[in-house]
Amino acid sequence: MSEDAAGVRLSDAQRIDWLRLIRSANVGPRTFRSLINHFGGAGAALAVLPELAHRGGASRPVRICSIAEAERELAQADAMNVTLVALGEPDYPHRLRMIDDAPPLLAVRGKLSTLKLPLVAIVGSRNASAAGVKFTERLARELGEAGFGVVSGLARGIDAAAHRATTGTGTVAVLAGGHDCPYPPEHVPLLDALLAEGAAVSEMPFGWEPRARDFPRRNRLISGLSLGVVVIEAAQRSGSLITARMALEQGREVFAVPGSPIDPRTEGTNKLLKQGATLVTEAADVIPVLQPILGRPTDLPVEEPATAGPAAEPDDNERNRIVALLGPTPVAIDDLIRISGSSPAIVRTVLLELEIAGGWSAQAPDWSHSCRRNRSAGSCDRFTAVWTSINAMSSR
Amino acid sequence: MSEDAAGVRLSDAQRIDWLRLIRSANVGPRTFRSLINHFGGAGAALAVLPELAHRGGASRPVRICSIAEAERELAQADAMNVTLVALGEPDYPHRLRMIDDAPPLLAVRGKLSTLKLPLVAIVGSRNASAAGVKFTERLARELGEAGFGVVSGLARGIDAAAHRATTGTGTVAVLAGGHDCPYPPEHVPLLDALLAEGAAVSEMPFGWEPRARDFPRRNRLISGLSLGVVVIEAAQRSGSLITARMALEQGREVFAVPGSPIDPRTEGTNKLLKQGATLVTEAADVIPVLQPILGRPTDLPVEEPATAGPAAEPDDNERNRIVALLGPTPVAIDDLIRISGSSPAIVRTVLLELEIAGGWSAQAPDWSHSCRRNRSAGSCDRFTAVWTSINAMSSR
Repeated sequence: MSEDAAGVRLSDAQRIDWLRLIRSANVGPRTFRSLINHFGGAGAALAVLPELAHRGGASRPVRICSIAEAERELAQADAMNVTLVALGEPDYPHRLRMIDDAPPLLAVRGKLSTLKLPLVAIVGSRNASAAGVKFTERLARELGEAGFGVVSGLARGIDAAAHRATTGTGTVAVLAGGHDCPYPPEHVPLLDALLAEGAAVSEMPFGWEPRARDFPRRNRLISGLSLGVVVIEAAQRSGSLITARMALEQGREVFAVPGSPIDPRTEGTNKLLKQGATLVTEAADVIPVLQPILGRPTDLPVEEPATAGPAAEPDDNERNRIVALLGPTPVAIDDLIRISGSSPAIVRTVLLELEIAGGWSAQAPDWSHSCRRNRSAGSCDRFTAVWTSINAMSSR
Repeated sequence: MSEDAAGVRLSDAQRIDWLRLIRSANVGPRTFRSLINHFGGAGAALAVLPELAHRGGASRPVRICSIAEAERELAQADAMNVTLVALGEPDYPHRLRMIDDAPPLLAVRGKLSTLKLPLVAIVGSRNASAAGVKFTERLARELGEAGFGVVSGLARGIDAAAHRATTGTGTVAVLAGGHDCPYPPEHVPLLDALLAEGAAVSEMPFGWEPRARDFPRRNRLISGLSLGVVVIEAAQRSGSLITARMALEQGREVFAVPGSPIDPRTEGTNKLLKQGATLVTEAADVIPVLQPILGRPTDLPVEEPATAGPAAEPDDNERNRIVALLGPTPVAIDDLIRISGSSPAIVRTVLLELEIAGGWSAQAPDWSHSCRRNRSAGSCDRFTAVWTSINAMSSR
């Protein structure tokens, strides 16, 4: 394992293990992180996965990604000029690493160095007004000329306008599906054009056609990559507002563009402004807010620990007692540890078993628990996650 | 002089004196206040006016409004059902009394009790968009239904929409000219219609056709009457922004309605929002901000003092020394007193002489000196006014 200032590179064998683990059933980014922390590495976690699922009550064996499948994905990546960058590796986007559900492996196509630019997201309605599109082009171009890379979701309307205006300066398209399934299909030429100076990223495997519920999941990457998110024309309950919410959870700046109160397309942005988002009518409203953040240290080393602690083994009584404490109402892991009287290691093990078996899952903490706050309090992400019996996006 | 809880009424003779004094040359609302404070009443001030002007260096006698002229104005007011309400009288609008250049006499037509409603101003562009007009109607109607009287300037566009939507609930049109010279002429039917449940107010004499520079002067009354000002569609450097600035100086709430960054008609409102104005997309954004202010005490008794102090008489040396200190650059009266070494009474007298003679004038203190701050520090308005050699609007 070579080490440099910006991170460590996985060995080829480790990369295969990481890929197999994240592509196995019921393992999302949070569970992935718990597993490698708990068992000392992806290889060790893969080895115990069947046993964990069994103890967690899985009625049949959970699907584990085979070596052959992982090798096939790596070969496909090679063929499409896609690089699989692992969390903690030098090429992994600096700020994305900070979010608590950062993808263990990020598939990057295009110019890797675009991800090193200071990034700002521009998102908004698919059915944008002409004024919205025109303003987006102007803002994106100004931000690009000021040295920012512009991140968006390749959608119709605002997203496409933001990419189009920054194809020459560097833009990042975050896909909700695999690299071979870009959406919408009519934006394939735009996607191809932006790769010369920009990049497309995805956490999904090849062949993954994006479904509706993949878009909110994808949106956390748009905000996670960026210093801040500018929302242009968003209706109430729109995907762009989800991105704004995730930006807040991730401690990113939220900007919104004002609009007429009688235009439903700007109800969402006006609401963001009432909630305290920074009002934007020109790039000069964005740049001075982001500039001071650029130098802020964001290091959160994530790597396989050199030595793994012994795995804690709960007996059946202890497991049953902990499981009995869970229900449909979310509960913080800290509370579960306190109320159960079990050790943190035991509680974590039981929760991992349940999660691997499927049917239980960790959810992101709510708005009031930002990852920033949790970190500064010195506690690990896992301990502040909220557990419910509803399968969440992070453990499909 | 009868006295009641809400103020004192002028005698008929006093009302004639007040009217003569405010209608005389070089006497604006601030000078009026200085004169009656300094000489103990309007009658006494009128008696010394020629002498003051002479000592101030006037080359020919200043025009003093005659008793006959004042009586003619009162008769005209009677004929038009206009009431001349004096500062400090019970019918004088509660909050207008607080501003440091409140008109000594306010000419009110229509329903006097409308001025007792909690008032909110709605102002904006003359060349409003259809969306702006539609939103204005909705907002004004909602505020009217919530018990607020709506104040505006009878102009085309936003102003007219605000009046029109609140003709049934109570609206106040503030005129820049005399009551017999409403502007624009095509809004005379609207003006007549709003008088049943509302009022029109003016500080100008009958026959006064409004000139461009009368509108900013008028705008201070729009904000001065109101708890807050809602600005809808305002370009950069528009009259509505002057009203907003005056509202800030007067310690009133400023609200602004957002709009597209590519619409020049909303550049001004978006800028107000960046500066901290409250964002408004519905009446519910306005009402909770104003409701807590409703009960706030605002009493600032203004009346002719029972006993007048002896008028201070500067000798020529002292007068010349003080005059020599003045120049085209504004200077605070406090500084003038300190630097001249003369007593405050002497400095005030010299300044009054200069003002009455014309060519020198008191100006409103700049944004950083709000009347609220000055009052809380216990100092009189006059002492914080800034003096320059340029004639300001308050002493035409």
